[in-house]
Amino acid sequence: MAGNIPITTGWYFFLFSLVGACCGLLWTVFAGEGEPLIASIGFSGIAFAATYALICWVGEEFKRVGLKGNDRSKPNRPELPETMGAVCAVVYLMVMIIFIPFPFYEYFVLSTNGGGNRDITMEMVETGRILPRFPHNKLGEYLSALLSLQSMAILGIADDLFDIRWRHKVLLPAISSIPLLIMYYIDFGITNIVVPLPLQPYFGELLDLSYIYYLYMAAISIFCPNSINIYAGINGLEVEQSIAIAIFIVINDLLYISVPNHPAAASHLFSLYFLLPFLGVSVALWCHNKYPSKVFVGDTYCYFAGMTFAVVGILGHFSKTLLLLFIPQIFNFLYSAPQIFHLVPCPRHRLPHFNAKTNRMEPSRATFDKPPRRIISLALTILETVGLIKLWRNEQSGEIEEFSNMTLINLWLVRGGPKNEGRLTRELFWLQMFCGAVGLLARHKAALLVFPYDNLRMEDFEGLAAAAVEAVEAVV
Amino acid sequence: MAGNIPITTGWYFFLFSLVGACCGLLWTVFAGEGEPLIASIGFSGIAFAATYALICWVGEEFKRVGLKGNDRSKPNRPELPETMGAVCAVVYLMVMIIFIPFPFYEYFVLSTNGGGNRDITMEMVETGRILPRFPHNKLGEYLSALLSLQSMAILGIADDLFDIRWRHKVLLPAISSIPLLIMYYIDFGITNIVVPLPLQPYFGELLDLSYIYYLYMAAISIFCPNSINIYAGINGLEVEQSIAIAIFIVINDLLYISVPNHPAAASHLFSLYFLLPFLGVSVALWCHNKYPSKVFVGDTYCYFAGMTFAVVGILGHFSKTLLLLFIPQIFNFLYSAPQIFHLVPCPRHRLPHFNAKTNRMEPSRATFDKPPRRIISLALTILETVGLIKLWRNEQSGEIEEFSNMTLINLWLVRGGPKNEGRLTRELFWLQMFCGAVGLLARHKAALLVFPYDNLRMEDFEGLAAAAVEAVEAVV
Repeated sequence: MAGNIPITTGWYFFLFSLVGACCGLLWTVFAGEGEPLIASIGFSGIAFAATYALICWVGEEFKRVGLKGNDRSKPNRPELPETMGAVCAVVYLMVMIIFIPFPFYEYFVLSTNGGGNRDITMEMVETGRILPRFPHNKLGEYLSALLSLQSMAILGIADDLFDIRWRHKVLLPAISSIPLLIMYYIDFGITNIVVPLPLQPYFGELLDLSYIYYLYMAAISIFCPNSINIYAGINGLEVEQSIAIAIFIVINDLLYISVPNHPAAASHLFSLYFLLPFLGVSVALWCHNKYPSKVFVGDTYCYFAGMTFAVVGILGHFSKTLLLLFIPQIFNFLYSAPQIFHLVPCPRHRLPHFNAKTNRMEPSRATFDKPPRRIISLALTILETVGLIKLWRNEQSGEIEEFSNMTLINLWLVRGGPKNEGRLTRELFWLQMFCGAVGLLARHKAALLVFPYDNLRMEDFEGLAAAAVEAVEAVV
Repeated sequence: MAGNIPITTGWYFFLFSLVGACCGLLWTVFAGEGEPLIASIGFSGIAFAATYALICWVGEEFKRVGLKGNDRSKPNRPELPETMGAVCAVVYLMVMIIFIPFPFYEYFVLSTNGGGNRDITMEMVETGRILPRFPHNKLGEYLSALLSLQSMAILGIADDLFDIRWRHKVLLPAISSIPLLIMYYIDFGITNIVVPLPLQPYFGELLDLSYIYYLYMAAISIFCPNSINIYAGINGLEVEQSIAIAIFIVINDLLYISVPNHPAAASHLFSLYFLLPFLGVSVALWCHNKYPSKVFVGDTYCYFAGMTFAVVGILGHFSKTLLLLFIPQIFNFLYSAPQIFHLVPCPRHRLPHFNAKTNRMEPSRATFDKPPRRIISLALTILETVGLIKLWRNEQSGEIEEFSNMTLINLWLVRGGPKNEGRLTRELFWLQMFCGAVGLLARHKAALLVFPYDNLRMEDFEGLAAAAVEAVEAVV
């Protein structure tokens, strides 16, 4: 349509050849042993191409139904289509649905007449032979994960359409995590955690948190989407932080898979299946959303990305590791808390202020309509002295009148001075990468200081349990 | 908000007491054996209340984002909110997700520490005791059914938002049926059908259709939603036909469940779990959509309803029976075919014409811009003589100039004469009920003429297989 983003000839060639290559990859999978990881890579490439093209095609349609917004950080405040995360979500979900059989290929090709698992079990009883039993629980996990992500997509789209009240939308991810938690309850139910060494005298080596663990998982799935959602406001940041986090989870997964027959390898392979297509659609979105943005991602994408991480973290049993990759988001959340909970004034928009003259981003300010209470101004002054905030005082009274909005983005500008939006996003991306690297290092090296062992070297409890169950499956 | 539908005090009382009663019901379930059917009834009541209230509350919001339409069959053509089927779908899906544990309650309460299935199997191996193995395949079916319905909801909403082209939207249900078919392939793979007696000499008693059966199932899930979608256009018809169909499927299910330990009882119980909440949300929607409508249902509802029927029909193995409940839809589809495939002119809207003077609905007309070809006018004349269409001819030439649009609704008006919209809908509802009754009777009585046995009396193949598998599950 008219105002849609044109696809250059070069891009057409690239997308077509990419899809061709991926189809070739899938063909080898069909021809060969049906290696799921190869198939996953193939599908991810196709997901990238589909998302890239679709975003180009649907832009005007989205604007027409009112899914649009103005880019306030550009001189002419262009009007851009919103909620492109919905395109990512739909493409991602379709790919993941079509991918369903692949991880389970090896199990049901055994049956001669395509009769699937039923024939296997029956034959098993008739002949008494032991055949690999279909891992229905894994399939259940996979399906419930998709259900959670799909619910998140629906609720995210509803949020972008109807912009739901802040205090309500915070809970949307909790709703969409229900299938996941229920599945976890039905099927897994491991609520034990390894106690850090210093605490073992008091709690023993393993602690069963029972239902508290479910609250913890719910908290994870509330935190991940929302923390990404509030760490946003400049071109491309939402997508870039998600891509950075995804990359490090993938690295972590590869660490486990590379260890020969590591007991936890299966669940990390599982998380790869979810993350590779996610990277596919995210990078495609980034191509359009990177500075200067041609489209906005919408809350849908933030929720969807956060939920994807929560899902793989919970099903893969590395939710603690996951949080180590969320350091900037955690900091941003804690730092924003005073404004979010209205201890200090919180303007409608906290994104940095665009200075059209200098064409640079500057810290945006929040204003006290009446002089702040004693304790508040004391706290702010302390923050100022440690350089975590910028204050503007009244010349005469010395009262604090304004302060830089308490977001990591503004803080970065307070510390590093005004800079061009593109550069700001790039710097924050590399900050994310740096923190992720530190977090992962801490996980696998420093963990040994507080935990009896790093499960990369030795089988930790979860690995043990997984192994036990696999043994059971084999016997049954 | 301002223009929203008010909830009368009486309704408030009713809804609150209903929810109270349902919560009581659920409480008995928790306290007692955890009878899933009771829980399902309780959830259905809550679903009704939630849908009824939500539709009242969100109307204006929907209008604001452009989800609205004019009721062309009223004197003042009032503007009503559209796509209320989306509310039904979301409530339904949430209820079904929360319901997940109930059908499987008996299996995982066995484990002492809430550890779910894992503990059972492990204990089983340790102690050698036989405990019921968790029916993961049933859970898989349940989850994949939810995935299909959720996909259908998303695609339906997308259709209502962006009104997708007709030739594209026809295929949306096919996309959303993928999870179901994949699950069927992985997990069930029964592609045999019982051959009707007259054909048994040629095909034998059982015929394995293999992949043709999958095409058949895909066709079912394309047909059900679309056939409901094109049999629409007057207040309340979409919902009433869906309710009628659902009622007869429920009756059919009860027939099987009432037979003591009937092998197919399990799968019919399964379809009850899906249909009772569906009836809950549909009746709530009907309260607002019945003549004179205060809201429209949107394609979302038609797709969602049709997909629900397709899902239970496929997973419950009674897709042939299902079609017997779709007689009016099948007739309407065949009757509309000439216009749909543009053998004869097809105007944008085929809904009956509202005569403001008489306040009655009259058959709407399609016009030939040029005289029809010989064969066409012959065919139309034949239809006219058998009373299946009304033609308007040119006085001089006798050429056919106009004909009544070829929908069951118009035909009903051609035969029965102009009538008030409310009465028209009511009559078509009872037509649906009548056809359903005939269809179900045919299924269970006349079936004996062409099939060796009625599976209500004797175990048919599917029952046999189900029993076999249950035996296997018990042994394993």
